[in-house]
Amino acid sequence: MKNICIDLGGTNIKAGIIENDQLLYACNGPSMSDQSFLKVMNSIEKMIDEMMKKTNSMPSEYGGIGLCMPGIIDVDNNKVLAINAKHEEASSFNFNAWAQDKYHLPIVMENDARTALVGEWQHGEGRGVNDIVMMTLGTGIGGAAMINGKLLHGKHYQAGCLGGHFTINVHGDQCNCGNIGCVESQSASWRLKELIAKAKEGHTLLNGPQEIDFKVLFDLVREGNQIAKEVIDNILKVWSAGIVNMIHAYDPDVVIVSGGIMNSKDIILPFMKEWVAKYAWTAHHSVDIKASTHTENTALWGINYLVNDKYFKKINDSVQ
Amino acid sequence: MKNICIDLGGTNIKAGIIENDQLLYACNGPSMSDQSFLKVMNSIEKMIDEMMKKTNSMPSEYGGIGLCMPGIIDVDNNKVLAINAKHEEASSFNFNAWAQDKYHLPIVMENDARTALVGEWQHGEGRGVNDIVMMTLGTGIGGAAMINGKLLHGKHYQAGCLGGHFTINVHGDQCNCGNIGCVESQSASWRLKELIAKAKEGHTLLNGPQEIDFKVLFDLVREGNQIAKEVIDNILKVWSAGIVNMIHAYDPDVVIVSGGIMNSKDIILPFMKEWVAKYAWTAHHSVDIKASTHTENTALWGINYLVNDKYFKKINDSVQ
Repeated sequence: MKNICIDLGGTNIKAGIIENDQLLYACNGPSMSDQSFLKVMNSIEKMIDEMMKKTNSMPSEYGGIGLCMPGIIDVDNNKVLAINAKHEEASSFNFNAWAQDKYHLPIVMENDARTALVGEWQHGEGRGVNDIVMMTLGTGIGGAAMINGKLLHGKHYQAGCLGGHFTINVHGDQCNCGNIGCVESQSASWRLKELIAKAKEGHTLLNGPQEIDFKVLFDLVREGNQIAKEVIDNILKVWSAGIVNMIHAYDPDVVIVSGGIMNSKDIILPFMKEWVAKYAWTAHHSVDIKASTHTENTALWGINYLVNDKYFKKINDSVQ
Repeated sequence: MKNICIDLGGTNIKAGIIENDQLLYACNGPSMSDQSFLKVMNSIEKMIDEMMKKTNSMPSEYGGIGLCMPGIIDVDNNKVLAINAKHEEASSFNFNAWAQDKYHLPIVMENDARTALVGEWQHGEGRGVNDIVMMTLGTGIGGAAMINGKLLHGKHYQAGCLGGHFTINVHGDQCNCGNIGCVESQSASWRLKELIAKAKEGHTLLNGPQEIDFKVLFDLVREGNQIAKEVIDNILKVWSAGIVNMIHAYDPDVVIVSGGIMNSKDIILPFMKEWVAKYAWTAHHSVDIKASTHTENTALWGINYLVNDKYFKKINDSVQ
């Protein structure tokens, strides 16, 4: 079955037509998070129009629409329950009516970290494994958990998604999630300047000639800069403690870490693996820590699988 | 159906015969954790003999045996995968053969925090709710999670059980679980002396006339002792951060806290409720925090339910 797959992010919208594990056509657009959500949806409609035109197809040829986005998603009723400020009008948008009215198609929605996990499970670093934890290191820190081949959702669709907001320092800093000392508040890119300022001699980095982001910081570590190393080591501890908590919570065989930051996996992965081997409780097994290697369209593959699973039960037997 | 139910703890063994939600007979014995595990099982056999004699019954009249104990339990094969030093020989004991050879009965095994959760779900503070987290405050700190009426186990039977070993202070102390800064290492009774010693003026408590345990400490708080209050406040923060993590991990409607320490629920519960209301992420709902009120035989009720559920599908319709 051929599906229309949309990955609505904070900065970009990715869209693709997927049929029988083939990405037939893909396109990108800005997510226009400064504009009304109706305009965002108009932009998605234009991308769908373009894809249909270029592939010379009509809505009736499709099985369904899959849409993933950040936030807490009611996957039974296709409602956005909570989302950050960028797309807050999405909470009152009727996605079922939109898909039915515009295309006469069913729609499947899911949180984007969960679809990334499903994409990795089907086509990436999670192939052949049914117990997976995903940690997404971006502006914020997200997560998802799969147990025995099933995504964990929980009563209010929050389970698995809030790994970035596990407390890892009860004496730590306020997060914009409301919690204190959670993984995100102690390590996310939006906290980076403050975290550097707190480090011993951190001001020498901040007062230097260049803007400091994670890429610059990791490059400084590779050059042997001790202040950058102190800042990064503290952040690696926080991420690793977050992974230990995800392992203790969900008992996976593999933890997949994704995000542009993983371009520095040469530094990140050895630290995480050593920390987990040392501190995680695993009675008679070990947990593998991997970097996501198929980040570009992972979420599209994931949402495509979920559309097929919900409406067409096209389940890949090899992983059952 | 009538079942033989055993709760094998670190200090005591409780046994009971339960039929149609009636506890027909119950008895207690020491768990003899300083002796071989064969002797422990001999003691359990004697308790079963006593119960059958007193109720004038024979093995053939029973549906099955339920046995709960601490540790990581392979519930599919009735094996103890990991357990603390007290009963470590249990790992090589063949429980299936024992139950079959001695009584010609099937056996169901489960971790004791999970059976306590099931007991609360069926007969205690979890009635009418299908999404529950249990936190057990004892010598160690245990946990269990139920999502949509199903106990969470995970691939290696660890999921839900390790809430006491979630990191809540990445800069914290070494735990005997191997982790650092986990809930247990920052708050359990076996750490109490060290935690008091670390507090400002804590030595004045330790050098006082009486032995300091949690009961004494809570009594001192009620008398207005500021040093005791500082120690207890720090511990309450740790327990509460642990609860926030369990809420973020498993998305429950209710968290049930059990253990003798909850005799001081007048101090503990208000603190936990305030912390959770302030720091836990719950989009459109609130999570209730309750103290277990049926601690005496909760685990027996729980394991009885699991025997019936596995072999006789006697499921309480009211909670489905």
